[in-house]
Amino acid sequence: MGTEIERKFLVSGDFRSSATSQHRIVQGYLTTNADCTVRVRLMDDKAFLTIKGSSSEDGLERAEWEYPVPVADAEAMLALPGIRSLAKVRFKVPVGKHVWEVDVFEGANAGLIMAEVELGSRDEGFERPEWIGREVTGDARYYNSQLLTKPYRSWE
Amino acid sequence: MGTEIERKFLVSGDFRSSATSQHRIVQGYLTTNADCTVRVRLMDDKAFLTIKGSSSEDGLERAEWEYPVPVADAEAMLALPGIRSLAKVRFKVPVGKHVWEVDVFEGANAGLIMAEVELGSRDEGFERPEWIGREVTGDARYYNSQLLTKPYRSWE
Repeated sequence: MGTEIERKFLVSGDFRSSATSQHRIVQGYLTTNADCTVRVRLMDDKAFLTIKGSSSEDGLERAEWEYPVPVADAEAMLALPGIRSLAKVRFKVPVGKHVWEVDVFEGANAGLIMAEVELGSRDEGFERPEWIGREVTGDARYYNSQLLTKPYRSWE
Repeated sequence: MGTEIERKFLVSGDFRSSATSQHRIVQGYLTTNADCTVRVRLMDDKAFLTIKGSSSEDGLERAEWEYPVPVADAEAMLALPGIRSLAKVRFKVPVGKHVWEVDVFEGANAGLIMAEVELGSRDEGFERPEWIGREVTGDARYYNSQLLTKPYRSWE
């Protein structure tokens, strides 16, 4: 188990020129209730099952556990009736002491680009890259689990 | 992945004299929606995460995947807010070519004893031990996930 502390921002500028890697991700949720989410993720040729507890009130912290699983298992879970999935390309972008993750969404969420930085503690400082816009930490609309049921392109 | 084919019965007689092992189980569900359940189980000094798809219409078959996880992880998941758990003692009872699992429930489900036999195919025959009573295969009230929200002792 770990506790995840992260801050999320919309992206408004060019991050690609400083990206060091990119991965294609397809993921779905076996559950998205208020107390817990269970995520199945295919990333390139690997697969993971991730359990996250509910967020702290300010949306900054969540308990999180992740386990590798066989790709065939993940594919079969994503094919279960009623399981919706989304696709995105994730770029890793080093900025100062941190490596940001920038997700470029596809399909019904195309147009949405979101950047996250993971921190070691709540008050850890970090360098703000030029290409980030508004902070959306704790805004439930931007949770990946919410983007499945209410995708970005359906917003007003 | 496997597909689980099992039949479930209430227990009305003495099975303990033929039991070959017993294990204490504490389990909870991270989700129990119609399409999928995600179960965390502590069994003696081991822990497992189990994902089950929705049941076939007759309640006989379900897709199932199980992964071992660290005990400390499972304990922390069971302690997440909103996660309910139940406790039972499971006996293994060989009968003919099969090994039955008999669950003696505790706490809010005390009084309920249920036996399961796992089959290799839908039409596989099996010997019915004397100590089983009514079949409850496919009866959702007897799903472990349902016994958490509507425990046996609360039934009429």
